[in-house]
This record gives sequence, C-alpha cells and structure tokens, in this order.
Amino acid sequence: MAVYRSIEWRDGVVRMLDQRLLPDEIKYLDYDDYNEVAKAIKVMVIRGAPAIGAAAAYGLALAAYHSSSQIPQQIVEELEEAAKCLRAARPTAVNLFYAIDRVMERVRASTPHSVEELRHLVLTEADAIAEEDVRINKNIGLNALALVPQKATFIHHCNTGSLATVDYGTALGIIRTAFEHGRDVFVYVDETRPRLQGARLTSWELRELGIPHSVVVDGASGYVMKVKGVDLVTVGCDRVAANGDTAKKIGTYNLAIVSHAHRVPFYVAAPTTTIDLSIASGEQIQIEERDPSEVLFIGSQRITPDGTMAVNPAFDVTPAEYITAIITEEGIAYPPYTQSLPPLVAKAAARRLQVKPV
Amino acid sequence: MAVYRSIEWRDGVVRMLDQRLLPDEIKYLDYDDYNEVAKAIKVMVIRGAPAIGAAAAYGLALAAYHSSSQIPQQIVEELEEAAKCLRAARPTAVNLFYAIDRVMERVRASTPHSVEELRHLVLTEADAIAEEDVRINKNIGLNALALVPQKATFIHHCNTGSLATVDYGTALGIIRTAFEHGRDVFVYVDETRPRLQGARLTSWELRELGIPHSVVVDGASGYVMKVKGVDLVTVGCDRVAANGDTAKKIGTYNLAIVSHAHRVPFYVAAPTTTIDLSIASGEQIQIEERDPSEVLFIGSQRITPDGTMAVNPAFDVTPAEYITAIITEEGIAYPPYTQSLPPLVAKAAARRLQVKPV
Repeated sequence: MAVYRSIEWRDGVVRMLDQRLLPDEIKYLDYDDYNEVAKAIKVMVIRGAPAIGAAAAYGLALAAYHSSSQIPQQIVEELEEAAKCLRAARPTAVNLFYAIDRVMERVRASTPHSVEELRHLVLTEADAIAEEDVRINKNIGLNALALVPQKATFIHHCNTGSLATVDYGTALGIIRTAFEHGRDVFVYVDETRPRLQGARLTSWELRELGIPHSVVVDGASGYVMKVKGVDLVTVGCDRVAANGDTAKKIGTYNLAIVSHAHRVPFYVAAPTTTIDLSIASGEQIQIEERDPSEVLFIGSQRITPDGTMAVNPAFDVTPAEYITAIITEEGIAYPPYTQSLPPLVAKAAARRLQVKPV
Repeated sequence: MAVYRSIEWRDGVVRMLDQRLLPDEIKYLDYDDYNEVAKAIKVMVIRGAPAIGAAAAYGLALAAYHSSSQIPQQIVEELEEAAKCLRAARPTAVNLFYAIDRVMERVRASTPHSVEELRHLVLTEADAIAEEDVRINKNIGLNALALVPQKATFIHHCNTGSLATVDYGTALGIIRTAFEHGRDVFVYVDETRPRLQGARLTSWELRELGIPHSVVVDGASGYVMKVKGVDLVTVGCDRVAANGDTAKKIGTYNLAIVSHAHRVPFYVAAPTTTIDLSIASGEQIQIEERDPSEVLFIGSQRITPDGTMAVNPAFDVTPAEYITAIITEEGIAYPPYTQSLPPLVAKAAARRLQVKPV
C-alpha cells in the first residue's frame, strides 16, 4: 500500500504531486515561487479544499524564504502581496482564505527581530496547518464510526482522500477508518465529471488501500441506490455556511437530492476550518465557473462538435435540508446547524489556542 | 442545415450512419446480413428506441431478400430464426420487440404465393414502421407545443433526435417543433455519460438545426435549475409500463428526481409504440448492464487506474410519480397513467388498422 502525500515542504521548496496526471503518471513538481504556487492551485496541480489551504500557507513560506530583503518589515509587506495573489487563486473553498488569514495574523501579531525569525514563524504556522489537517482528518474518521453500519455500502463523490488533503482524507478518510476498523465496506465511486476526480483519483486511492469499490457514472446514483442498495453517502466540502448549506464539487447537490428521495443518509465531512460562520447561507458562497474546455475535452480528446459551448460550474451548493449530519473533528453536528455548528467551531479554536506556542 | 437519416433501405441493403464515430466522422455502413444488423444494434452503430425498432424490421427484410430459398414457407422459417436473433440484440427498448412482432404477425397472417410477394410484404411493413415513426415524431412535437412557453429553457438528456429515430426525433423533436414555431428556445444538453450521446450527438443535431444550446455535465442539472433557470425537461423513453413508469437512458431517473425537487415539469416523449401495456410497472422492465469498459474508457483513452471495476447500467426506470406528462402522437397523457395511456394506445392501433393494406 502506497499512499502519496499531496504536498510537502522540503528545504525551501514546496513539492506537489501533479494530480492532473494521475493515475497514469506519478510526477512531483517543485516550487520555489509563490506565484507559481498560486498558478498550481488555479490549474489544479493540487486540489481539494484542505490541500489548497496548506498549499497557500506554504506559498507564503516560499515568499518569506526567497525574499532578497534583509529587513523583516519589508518581508511582511511582500507577504501581504503574496497573500493577495494566493487568495485570488480560487474563489470557493474557504480553507484557502482560512490558511492565509491564519498565517498573516501570526505575522502581523509578531515583532520579528530578524529575517530568520520571521521565516521560521511563517513556516511553523504553515507546518502547523498541514499537521493539524492530518490530525483533523483522522478524528473525523473516528467520529464518523458511530454512523457507519457493520456492512456499509457507500456512494462517494469527487476525491476527498489523501490527495485532497495534506494526508488521510476527509469523506474518504471516513471510509478508510471504517475499513481499518473492520467494517465490511464497499464503495460506489461517482466518476465526477468533468475532471473525473472519482474515476481517476478516488479509485486509485481505494485500490492502494485495498478497499473494494466500483466506479459509476454520476447519473447512475439513483439506479445504484434503488437496485444495488446503498447505506450512506459521504462527501467532503469546500465551504459550509452557518446554516449548514454546503458548497462542494459539482454533482454533489444532485446526489444529495437523490439520496434524500431514497432516504439514504447524506453525510458531509467537514474540518471546522471549512465552516464559515461569517456567512449566513449558501447564497453568499461564490461559485467558480471554470473553462468550458474541461467539459468539451477529455484529456486531449474533444468529445463535442466544433463550436459547441459548455457551462462549467466547478461547485454547487447543497442546502442544509438535504444533509443528515456534518461530521467534524470536534464531533457531529445535526440540524439545526445554526445551533450545532458554532460550539464545534469554538471548541476547535480553543484547542488551537491551547497548543499555540506563545 | 443538414440533418442525417439514421437508417435507410437501399435496394436490398440497409444503410446506417455509424453513430459511434459522430461528431468526428460521418460514415455510413451497409448491411446485407441480418446477423450483422443485430450486431450493429448491440454495439450501437445505431441506437435510440425508435431507430433500433426500424433497424430490426429492416433486418427481417434483409433475411427475406437474401435467402437463397425459392419456397416461401422456408423463408418464413428463416424469418422466425432472424426474428429470434434480432430480438436478442438489446433487452430494454420495447420498440425492438414491437417492430419484430409487427412484421412477423403480418408474415404469419399471410399466404404468399411467391418469394417475391413475401419479400414485398416484409419490406412494405418495415417501410411502414419507418415512415410511421417520422409521422409519429412530428405529431409528438405538435402535441407538445401547448406545454412549451414562449421563452423556453430546456434540459434534455441523451439523444432523442433524428439519430435516435428514423427521422425528426421525439423529445428533441419537441424542441425542434417549438423552435420552428417561433418559441425562444435554449437547451442545456446533459452530456449523458458514459456514451456521451448528449455531448456528441444532441449538440451536433442542435448545431445543424441552429438551436442555441450549451452542454453541461450530468451532475450539473440541479445547479442549472437553481442558478440559471429551467422551464421544462424533455426526455425520450425506451419503454413505458402501464402505470407510466419509464425506462430511459441512465441518468434520466436522477434528472427526474432533481426536476421534481425544483418543481420543473418533466415530460416524456413517447411514441405509442414505446408503451408496453402488458407490464404493470417498471419493476418488470429488464435493465441492460453493458460492458464496464464504456465507463472506464473514453474513446481509446483509459480514465481509471488499471484493474478498476465499473458498474454500467444502460438505463434506469423513472417512476411515474416524477413524470408530469407523457406526450404521444395521439395526445398527452396525465396521471393516473393507468387510465390515460390505454385510450391513446387504442387510438393509435385503430389508426394503423385503418391505413393497413388489406
């Protein structure tokens, strides 16, 4: 079993596994320029809300490390510039903004006496974000165990495994934990058009983990629920609003409606860092519409006639009413989410304060 | 505007447009052996319930034309054999069985005095099925006009146009008629994985017809309904049970559930030949599961890791409760379908009796 880490800091360089080439090719790309990291996020060398959060934090570390300045305050200004650039990479996932804000708050609150001290501070915070992500994911998996029956057939949408996070995975982490705890697991893997994260990445991770699975087209979830039988659906998320509305990969909303119609529990795996209590509902979440070519081409192969147009929303918003529960590292939130989410977010914030170096 | 005919009889040969190659290549294949026609149906050179009905009828004509026998009764026996072979080509669409039964009933009821007379009889019936299909489709379009608002944004699934029929189309025929009658039409084209009939074929037909459209992935229908606005959904069908349950291309069931959740009218275009009153409900419809490679590969390109499995149902069944109306060439059926469908089927049967040569 080999499961690969999506992102790593290596001595002044950020190394990413190029997810555009998987599963055909395992290739790492090294970055020493935050502008290139922003581009990598944009073109989806790295993807998945938690992973792009870590990538942005390491992008800031690159800005600090590779500055030619010897004046801490000047580097802080450069960091502000880098933060602006990295924030603009993708609009929907809140982890990106969370990670940048968190590093920048540390920077702004500090009075570093040397460039080295500032660099150390930025990298330490980026490392903390990355390491926290792994711990968070494992706890989500453990918390979810109570919801997973002994014989558990899942539908899983997109990719939310090691590749979408720093390591381990969120919704796929739930499946992994259940499997590792002896549950009799089978996964129907939504292929997840247009970018096929399910067909390409989730099936690859499941194979590496030895978890039985089968790919289905996104339109087959109703058939699978009705004819084959499905016990639960698990998805990740890119942003959760205060009322529980959840932005996630395009196709998630359809899957949630279909789950609801079949009374199949629909669970969202959400690190508390993905919960954005500053917005009341999903209506305030900006949905990225990406290049139509992602729909019109598969790889280099054009699948539509010349001149055909496409609409290509990267995400959709699933209203809270379709979500059975939101599973965080601090516990499980049930409706009404306006009441159940804030205590979990507060608990996570308190934990971070406790462990933060003074 | 060039719209191509999916199937034609040409002097002892059946000519089909190879739909596996569209839109990249326009290539016709000529068949003079019914076994090859059965294979063409199986591998989807030709597809779409009405089109494969006509193909099977012409397959029987081939059996009659290319028999070396000079004894009519012997050719009738060969036709029984050919009918068996053609019936086995695909299990879900009822038009296939309808067309074969109709030709064979004519054959069995006749006492041909010569081989020529028998050949003529089989071909005449096959031609009648093909010509009727075109008339039926045009009437479905006209009957549907009352349901199409002046500004009409559709979602359409799979391909139900000229290519899926002998000519004109069923659900796409509705869109075409509305467009030709001056309605302000826009179509969101579900790409329809795994075989991409929407992306490849429907977008091609719409382009040829000059009808504005945009392709979306199948998982985006909920997003499109919520964010862009959709007035109605039209789909074709492969078999309609007496209670209105409808078998149609995989993904239709999901789309119906999603339409229902958004209160978007969901219309099935059904030639009465597709209505099978002999079965009470959709539970009795056999659903074809096709080769997993249709999911695992796109063209020659493998999209999943080596060794990945897939489940590949070709169709699903949409329960009647999700269907706003069923539009036939004889009129519109509303729920309860057990009451509204039989009179329409009877009307069509009476019309056929009227025009049948004695």
